[in-house]
Amino acid sequence: MTTNLVEQSGTASVEAGSQDVLRNLYADWAEIMATTPDLTMRLFRSIFDEWHQPTVEPEGVMYREDTVGGVPGIWCLPEGADQSKVLLYTHGGGFAVGSASSHRKLAAHVAKALGSVSFVLDYRRAPEFQHPAQIEDGVAAFDALVASGIAPEDITTIGDSAGGNLAIAIALALKEQGKRTPGRVIAFSPWLDMENKGETLVTNNDTDALITPELLEGMIAGVLGGTIDPRTPLANPLHADFNDFPRLYITAGSVESLLDNATRLEERAKAAGVDVTLSIGEGQQHVYPFLAGRSALVAQEFDKLAAWYRK
Amino acid sequence: MTTNLVEQSGTASVEAGSQDVLRNLYADWAEIMATTPDLTMRLFRSIFDEWHQPTVEPEGVMYREDTVGGVPGIWCLPEGADQSKVLLYTHGGGFAVGSASSHRKLAAHVAKALGSVSFVLDYRRAPEFQHPAQIEDGVAAFDALVASGIAPEDITTIGDSAGGNLAIAIALALKEQGKRTPGRVIAFSPWLDMENKGETLVTNNDTDALITPELLEGMIAGVLGGTIDPRTPLANPLHADFNDFPRLYITAGSVESLLDNATRLEERAKAAGVDVTLSIGEGQQHVYPFLAGRSALVAQEFDKLAAWYRK
Repeated sequence: MTTNLVEQSGTASVEAGSQDVLRNLYADWAEIMATTPDLTMRLFRSIFDEWHQPTVEPEGVMYREDTVGGVPGIWCLPEGADQSKVLLYTHGGGFAVGSASSHRKLAAHVAKALGSVSFVLDYRRAPEFQHPAQIEDGVAAFDALVASGIAPEDITTIGDSAGGNLAIAIALALKEQGKRTPGRVIAFSPWLDMENKGETLVTNNDTDALITPELLEGMIAGVLGGTIDPRTPLANPLHADFNDFPRLYITAGSVESLLDNATRLEERAKAAGVDVTLSIGEGQQHVYPFLAGRSALVAQEFDKLAAWYRK
Repeated sequence: MTTNLVEQSGTASVEAGSQDVLRNLYADWAEIMATTPDLTMRLFRSIFDEWHQPTVEPEGVMYREDTVGGVPGIWCLPEGADQSKVLLYTHGGGFAVGSASSHRKLAAHVAKALGSVSFVLDYRRAPEFQHPAQIEDGVAAFDALVASGIAPEDITTIGDSAGGNLAIAIALALKEQGKRTPGRVIAFSPWLDMENKGETLVTNNDTDALITPELLEGMIAGVLGGTIDPRTPLANPLHADFNDFPRLYITAGSVESLLDNATRLEERAKAAGVDVTLSIGEGQQHVYPFLAGRSALVAQEFDKLAAWYRK
């Protein structure tokens, strides 16, 4: 359990043990969902707020609650970080669950790795608030950062899963509105396909510990309300126009059901001439950066991400 | 939601609104428990890990996971704190729920107020581990701190609810073992009476948003296993010998069901000649210091605690 032990160790067995922490949490959630058919949204949110558990507390980071552009959230402030470079972090959880709290440690690890600060948004969640409320919150926070003097190119929109979708959609929305876009976009295991028809939903069904088409179907109903077209470009960036889109970094796990959301995104962005990098974590689950502080593979991935970020 | 707004405001309405955050969380948990008769320990722990929510992220504090004496936990390290002065924090949750994670922010606020560092223990929980496993973990951590060079008198055992019981019991156990005791003991809304017969269980039943005799009965069964005498002094410090006990600071809320655990503790400790301070928060719920960063009353209470600590 100690940070030092984990960081000093590089053996394969420790790495395998590290990965189990995330997979076991997902398997546990999946079992709760399977065996509790009347699980309330209240309890659904409670278990997903445990998403922080696989992540080790990053050392040397301070926090501050704030509202930015009217949106509450948590600043992650690594010692010595450049406070003029901001990672605007939209958390995952199918637009319905997850929070700034569940993603604080992850967003802090990334900020530390990139030498920047991050702000994790508590955007309005579905089903109480449908698309595009989440994107509006992200744009409002982005606009407020710019109004406070942060250069747009020094802002990176970043997120995981549904929050990876939002990180992309916020940049697309800013482009649509004729505003300057973020300098970079980062998406960990982005969930984009609101038509819910990816091939890896089938081929990785046995290896993904969490995601099922049924789970996604419920999330889609929550955020689109059965009325919004699942091919709406801002809701489903696989249908978006990526011309003049910022530099884009995508990660995904090779065994996850949403893998081909990442590969299809890469393909579509490349076709539009975007500078895009896709990094696949071999044998990894959905949003495996949650193993930050525990997994040597994530440390390597963050080194790679930092090199890309500084370029 | 912003820290600054809350800290700058001293109006009665903001204070009332602040208190609602804790009471509403308790009322919500109570409703879940009442309406989910088959609530598993797994989900019980999930909802109680939300205990951090009423507490605002303290600014200027860093964290580090560690194990001390074989017990995992989280160090809370305020900027500029005296690292030779340690608050050994045992979290509440009926010995069964709660965690270092649920109490990180609270323990960090206290550390900041007292100019010390705190270590929040993830001690072994009931019912998997019964009394005195929790106390053994606390003693092991205390012994390890002393072995690392921290003076016993510079260690304060501190906790809330069942963790307030443990903070006292750890000091009693050290005394029994003929070791030097902590310099100070702090208990927020301690839960001590394993016979479950306090008067305020009845008289404050309508105003306490969380605690019921039935809830406590289940917790007692978990930690004592139906075999350990509920008058065992280390399990129920209301039956302990307080001769040569360290300086003791107790807080409680005037409307909580466990209020007379605090008042009976004060009485018993005083009778043994202990230097004891009891501070009652008017109109406050169980462990109202969870409102740290949000409530002016808690800020005042922490000022008072800091003056006591430095004396």
